[in-house]
Amino acid sequence: MSEPILVEAEALRDFTARAFVTAGVPADEARIAADVLVTADLRGVDSHGVARLHHYLARIEKGLVAPTAPLTIVRERPTALTIDAGNGLGLVTAYRAMELALERAARYGSAAVAVRHSNHFGIAGYFAMMALPHDMIGLAMCNASPTVVPFGGREPMLGTNPIAWAIPCGEEPAVVADMATSGVSYGKLEVARRTGAAIPVGWALGADGAPTTDPAEAMQIRSILPLGGLVEGTGYKGYALATVVEALCHALSGAAMSREIVAVQGRGEQPSNIGHFFAAYAVDAFRPLAEFKAEMDRLVRTLRSCPPQDGAGPVRIPGEKEHRTTLQRSRDGIPLHPTVVATLQRIAAERGIEPAW
Amino acid sequence: MSEPILVEAEALRDFTARAFVTAGVPADEARIAADVLVTADLRGVDSHGVARLHHYLARIEKGLVAPTAPLTIVRERPTALTIDAGNGLGLVTAYRAMELALERAARYGSAAVAVRHSNHFGIAGYFAMMALPHDMIGLAMCNASPTVVPFGGREPMLGTNPIAWAIPCGEEPAVVADMATSGVSYGKLEVARRTGAAIPVGWALGADGAPTTDPAEAMQIRSILPLGGLVEGTGYKGYALATVVEALCHALSGAAMSREIVAVQGRGEQPSNIGHFFAAYAVDAFRPLAEFKAEMDRLVRTLRSCPPQDGAGPVRIPGEKEHRTTLQRSRDGIPLHPTVVATLQRIAAERGIEPAW
Repeated sequence: MSEPILVEAEALRDFTARAFVTAGVPADEARIAADVLVTADLRGVDSHGVARLHHYLARIEKGLVAPTAPLTIVRERPTALTIDAGNGLGLVTAYRAMELALERAARYGSAAVAVRHSNHFGIAGYFAMMALPHDMIGLAMCNASPTVVPFGGREPMLGTNPIAWAIPCGEEPAVVADMATSGVSYGKLEVARRTGAAIPVGWALGADGAPTTDPAEAMQIRSILPLGGLVEGTGYKGYALATVVEALCHALSGAAMSREIVAVQGRGEQPSNIGHFFAAYAVDAFRPLAEFKAEMDRLVRTLRSCPPQDGAGPVRIPGEKEHRTTLQRSRDGIPLHPTVVATLQRIAAERGIEPAW
Repeated sequence: MSEPILVEAEALRDFTARAFVTAGVPADEARIAADVLVTADLRGVDSHGVARLHHYLARIEKGLVAPTAPLTIVRERPTALTIDAGNGLGLVTAYRAMELALERAARYGSAAVAVRHSNHFGIAGYFAMMALPHDMIGLAMCNASPTVVPFGGREPMLGTNPIAWAIPCGEEPAVVADMATSGVSYGKLEVARRTGAAIPVGWALGADGAPTTDPAEAMQIRSILPLGGLVEGTGYKGYALATVVEALCHALSGAAMSREIVAVQGRGEQPSNIGHFFAAYAVDAFRPLAEFKAEMDRLVRTLRSCPPQDGAGPVRIPGEKEHRTTLQRSRDGIPLHPTVVATLQRIAAERGIEPAW
């Protein structure tokens, strides 16, 4: 295995933004898109970071994503809005939609925004976490190209359909639950294939409909199992959550059904029409902020005090690992796999933009 | 094994309501409480139905639940309310709180309500499904006494902390995702113990911290595994969802933390101070209702068309099994286990209320 290359976060953000600008993304929105990708890398979600930059650029330049399209509010009530993103860059349209949800929640207490005609938006957690500086709770969902089988089924009908919640704390880091409703994300399969690792039984089905440990086969078959896997009494739950995400991101917004979405990875030659759903809850509308934060800190510390199972490390809070990774990578740099660096260097050479590392 | 006894749903509802009245619950609220329990039995969630009636009655009569307490709005914005349930019967306070969420969502498009000082509310799905006749999407959550270990931990710190979503369709039955964020509910362990069945590996830890198949041991240790179980990369997701439910039902509402909640099963001798969280989304505020319902029908039919895994039955929609069970049990009667019938007969004899079956 070749060693990862450490890249400073701000240099990577700057390079990524300049790359988006060369594809025709306006400068301020390129900065947003770059921040979403680099935040994924900072949090250790390597599958959703700059490793995918070339996919986003390729789709823009094939005319499959319209980075200067305006957002249109197609239906509006005080705390329910539907946005047509006009096939804009998902990383940016999701940001704008969550801004609207936060603004309405600040005025009314809570609010929700559905988005149609959008594209892949990176990590769901980024948009949920936009609520945190406003002392709000954030919720973000997205549908995606079909890679996940229903419980009991053997053909991909659902996306990995992530759900992310972000909840502010006081002295403790925020609780951030950012998860595919499949057992694992498609990106985790990509990472396993890139690093040559086998995947555990229970992640995906193989061509024969039985569990496989080969990430390449799982990626080809596109038959990731829902959260809960094949286990009696639990596998239908991940499927049920994925179906809820589908209903909110597809049927409520007017976006495509996951089953009909073309993959972001550049294989598809038509617009994705991906859908999103966002909600925001202003903490102070429900409870005095100081009380809430003190209770969240107490909850976090209570959970952390749980004795670990034999052989397990200390119990961690949802998002704690990613928070620690962010602190460490902000300080030491982001370790990029050599194949990712090679891709970025090719982007740099093709576009005449000098990487700053 | 002795045969179940078939009881007509309306007769069971009527008997249950009369039993609540003998405990001091006002007649209209007794009818609500009875409907919540009998709906669980109709849906096949036998663990959460009239089998628990005696627990609810016992807690009222010990003075641990105050069935005539008024609900108080302690904090209010147009689409964010916090309710103090005054230690009222959870089955009823949840109903009233969801009514408020629906009313606000009808006015503003979406709304959320947090509830403190409440008690066990039965199946979460009942309250989410209250949105359906209003052509709204419903969300319901609840925390609970500690029975679930954090991912990697070995002491119960969280409740089974259910999440339920209900989403209306057109011609198809509604999509209803009603699930404990643990792999299984505590009630499923109760059913297994009652019927003498072993539980699958991955449901719970035993006294030695390793997986157990003995429901009685799991109930004693109270160490149910989160959704995703012990599987690498997935078990932390159920834990993360349970923590989100905890944050919304405990920290946001001002109710107790699951870790500090006394079990409903009558062992505890103090009020529970359970918390709930409800939200409602008016479909028509986001998208014309007919369009939405047509797309939901299409989604349901698409999922159902998925070829099944070898040996599995047809792919079913979340809530479909419960919907079919409801139709069948409404027609043929609810099959009650003889031990449940014996409990109901004891209640009838003690209270001088004649069961109508």
